[in-house]
Parts: sequence; structure tokens; C-alpha cells
Amino acid sequence: MSNATPSSGPDEFELISRLKAKLPTGDSVVVGAGDDCAVIDVGVPGKWQLHKTDAVVEGVHFTKDADPRQIGHKALGRALSDIAAMAGTPRWATVTLGLPDGFDAERVESIYDGMAALAKRHDVSLVGGETVVNPERLFIGVSLVGEIARDKCILRSGASVGDGVWVTGELGGSIAGHHIAFTPRLAEARWLAAHCQPSAMIDLSDGLAGDLGHLLTEANAGAELLERALPIRREARLRARESEAAKPPLLAALTDGEDYELCFTLGKGSAVALLDQFKQEFPDTPLSCIGKIVERPGLKIRQKSGIMKIATRGHVHFQ
Amino acid sequence: MSNATPSSGPDEFELISRLKAKLPTGDSVVVGAGDDCAVIDVGVPGKWQLHKTDAVVEGVHFTKDADPRQIGHKALGRALSDIAAMAGTPRWATVTLGLPDGFDAERVESIYDGMAALAKRHDVSLVGGETVVNPERLFIGVSLVGEIARDKCILRSGASVGDGVWVTGELGGSIAGHHIAFTPRLAEARWLAAHCQPSAMIDLSDGLAGDLGHLLTEANAGAELLERALPIRREARLRARESEAAKPPLLAALTDGEDYELCFTLGKGSAVALLDQFKQEFPDTPLSCIGKIVERPGLKIRQKSGIMKIATRGHVHFQ
Repeated sequence: MSNATPSSGPDEFELISRLKAKLPTGDSVVVGAGDDCAVIDVGVPGKWQLHKTDAVVEGVHFTKDADPRQIGHKALGRALSDIAAMAGTPRWATVTLGLPDGFDAERVESIYDGMAALAKRHDVSLVGGETVVNPERLFIGVSLVGEIARDKCILRSGASVGDGVWVTGELGGSIAGHHIAFTPRLAEARWLAAHCQPSAMIDLSDGLAGDLGHLLTEANAGAELLERALPIRREARLRARESEAAKPPLLAALTDGEDYELCFTLGKGSAVALLDQFKQEFPDTPLSCIGKIVERPGLKIRQKSGIMKIATRGHVHFQ
Repeated sequence: MSNATPSSGPDEFELISRLKAKLPTGDSVVVGAGDDCAVIDVGVPGKWQLHKTDAVVEGVHFTKDADPRQIGHKALGRALSDIAAMAGTPRWATVTLGLPDGFDAERVESIYDGMAALAKRHDVSLVGGETVVNPERLFIGVSLVGEIARDKCILRSGASVGDGVWVTGELGGSIAGHHIAFTPRLAEARWLAAHCQPSAMIDLSDGLAGDLGHLLTEANAGAELLERALPIRREARLRARESEAAKPPLLAALTDGEDYELCFTLGKGSAVALLDQFKQEFPDTPLSCIGKIVERPGLKIRQKSGIMKIATRGHVHFQ
């Protein structure tokens, strides 16, 4: 839903990179702004902390008439997905609610119910909150602190030429419902870190092309994907069939945001064994090898008709 | 400024207490929602972490034409003040910016400049951020993780009958400028914890009457204040003189929000020595003993004309 309100403002990525340059950090900051989470050495032996903040806004990330429990689920779920992207374990969350004037208290409670149910499922403690007035619309900020064993943390950087590119789940058409009901891939990510230590990982929130693009930028490399290997969500195909104005399914899979799936890279060799084991462990989570990392920068996709170049900007919030 | 947009919504405190009952927590949570910060045992020997989230909203906490550096200063400063309230040391912050459509990138940078300057002054690392669209107005959420030695943490609970009630700085009339330019009392709070370990402490964000009321509720006790001991800010007196519609200065000192000063309680005995040492250490920070904790619940103030009862609700955001 995050492309519901395009803006004439500055390009988000350019602005963020200018802002990043201003941020003071210290020795304890292993990885600062720019990855899915910040990685902090807080002094716990053998562990790092992961810090993440995120927000969802009415009319941008969910509609005014959305189920309040699902709104709460999504608000926390997005931050959980970022912890998953580093193979971490979420632990403590704080919540900031911006409430419009005259907001219904029961609706706020239902939002918390949705958040609390998801928190319980993942053993996350909701340790604090704040309410402020945001007169026109509901605004929910979630900050999450997680943990990761120092030798298991997976960053956006680390992909090598020859690595396979993998994704969990299916891509595209998230707006049909997945965007507000998704399951953050925490268990899958930790299993992957324990069993095959991906070389790089990211969660898919802005669309495959853009998010994979971050891994490629970090690796100073490119990727070649196979169209027939892309796990396109049924809803993306349906939408394309129903409306000529809708994106073709391939484009939807590459550029729709809010898949909240994992995209990771992995040295070739153990791919077949991995796939078998993963399917036994997570029978309900599709896992697909969709291509490989190549030397020449850029993102290409191999189709029946030939090779197509793809922009790696994906979904851009402020354009 | 937070009383600029009164609302017909539910009472904030009632809603928060209902929400608190829903929050899942675990063994690591020493103090959950309800104090200035959550207190977490994350496994660092001898230390606890303090987790806090807070937000400021355009038109609620600052005006549209406010200096953007000051907006950034205030956004981070409020959370720093909550870490100060527990005598902690702030360490890592993440920021969520909700930007209206067409927002000026230079203004965002100036907000970050204000935040970064304050962060540097207190050795806080800005480790991450997120930007989202909040179409009508600027919304800045700040999440802060701090640290505290386990034997130095000061909670809202702990005041005893006979303790003196103390405040730093001056009270009331914050809206005239203090609310956006205040200095969080981090150094003062740590000095107090090291030298006289206050029995309870809170930061004054909602007005003395309401915030002291939290300490009294926790202690199941009351307080008797002395009118002539209250350090009333000059601006509160000026405003009262200039307009008949303004609050009388005493009422302003008791109920205006956003003082961002410390209010703490302290066993009697060492008060005179404390005052001397504190003045040497912090010559620019007034410190006043304004009354004492008494057995009978409720807040009273002793005036020339007799004793007045005061409601301990202070400033309520949603009434």
C-alpha cells in the first residue's frame, strides 16, 4: 500500500544518504544506518543487538476501514521482518501511537490486540508506548530491539559472484491482502543462518528489483534472474488478467512492494540439499532459487524472448 | 505546546492503563510500561538497559514555522529527558520521520542537524532511521536505548513519608520558548544518583501536579508543597501580567507541561549539604526543595492564605 500516496518531494534514497552522513555514531555501532537494522555491541558476551524503527500510516500503509487487529499485526510485523532479514531474534518493542482527534478507544485496543498476539507468537515483550495527537490520521511507530549471535548475523553486504539468489514465499500483488496479514520469516531466517549461513540477506519491502539492488550495490556486482523461476503470487496474475491498467505479473513480482519475504544469496554447491531440508522444516514456505550473482553490475532477467535489463530502484516512496 | 490541540477522545491515562494490561512481557523486563522508561535486563553484567520511545508532531509540539534545528533538538531532547528521569546514560537512538507531501529536503536536513548536535553533546549514536509519508504534517518519532548501573536506577516508585520533594530548574510558562530549547538534565540526574540516590524521580513533561501525582500514586502517599518555595519561571509571571486570560503563575507552575526538569524525592538529613554541593557542580541549574511527602494521599499547597488542594491530573493530552 505504500505507493498509494506518491509525492513530489525529494528522492527518498538520496535524502537518506545525505542524512546518514550527518549521524554521529560511536565504537559500539557495528553497522549503523543503511542495513535492515543497526547492529550494536552493547556488551553482551557473544551477542549483538539489532535496533530497528518503523512506522505505518493510515491511507499510506493501510486503509481507514482496515481491520484494526490487522493494522496492529502489520505495524509490528514490518519491524519483525527487518529483524528476520539479519537472522535475528526480536526481543523488546516500544510503540508510538499518533491518534487522530476523537479516535475510538476500542479501535486502539484492537490494534494493540493484533500487535500483542503477534508479539506473543514471537516471544516479544511490549515494554512501553507513547500516545500523541496526529490530528488527521492514525500513525503507528514501532521500535524493536533484537539479538543475534555475533557469528550468525547476516548483512546486506557479502554476496559474491557465482552465489545463487534465493527468495522465500511469493512475490507481487501483495496489495490484495498479503501486505497486512503476512508472516514475518523469523524462523526461516534463523534456520538458514544455522544451516547454510547465507552470504547476504534483505527483506523484500520495496520490491525485489530495488531490494536485490541494495545487495548488488553492496557487492559491487550484478544479478541475472530467470523469469520462469520467479515465484509470482496468484493475485499478481489475477490483477493483470482483470485490468489492462494493472502491471504485468513479472513487473509486479519485481517492483510491487510489501512482500515481506527474505531475499538472500548463497554459495552454490549445497543448493539441492538445502532445498530438501528447508521443505521438510517449512512445508508451507516456498523457497526458490531465482538466479545468480554475476560480475557485471546491473539486474537482468532471462526470458524466453531474450534478456531484459531492469532498473534496480524498484518502489520509491517519494517519487 | 502539547495542549494546543485538545480532543474529545478518551482519557489518555485510562486508555493507557487498559492498553498496559494487554502488553506481553517476559522475565527480562525489570520494569515495563508505566515508568519514564522500560528497564530491561539484556544480559550486560552490572547494567540494565532503558528503552524509551517518544514523538513530536507539528501543530501539537511545535509550530509549522518553528526553527527546524530546534524541532530536531526537541524531538531527541524529550526522550533524553526520560532517560535522565531514571539517572541513565543515553546511548543509541533511531528516528522515524513522517514527512508531509512536498516537504522541503533542506528542512529535513536541518532537523537532523539539530538532533545530531544534541546527540553529539551527550555521546548518543544515531543508528538508524525511517522516513514515511504523513501527508498533513511533520511527525518525528525518536526511540532511545540507554544504560544504567543496576544499583543506580531510580524509578517513579520509592518515595517515603518524610522525604523532601525537589525540582531542578524553573516551572511554568515553558511555551514562551523553553519547551523547544531546554537542556535535558542528564548530568544532574547522574550526579544525584551518585551522590544522594533519590528515592524516586520523574521528569516534568505534563506539569508538576500531574507528574508528582505519579510519584504519590506509586508511594500511596501525598505531598504538601510550599508556594513560596516553588521556582516559578519568569515567563509564567509575565504571561499572567500581560493577559487576564493567562493562568495565574502558581497554576502555570503546577500544570503547564513541558518543563523537562527533574522532580525527585530524598530522605531528609543531607539536604543542606546536597544543595551546596549541587550548586558548586551545576551553578546554572537551580535546585529547590519545594515540600515533603506526607501520609495522607493528595496534593496540597501551603499558601499565605492557607492550604489549597490540587488535582493531581495536571496536563492531560486527550481531554
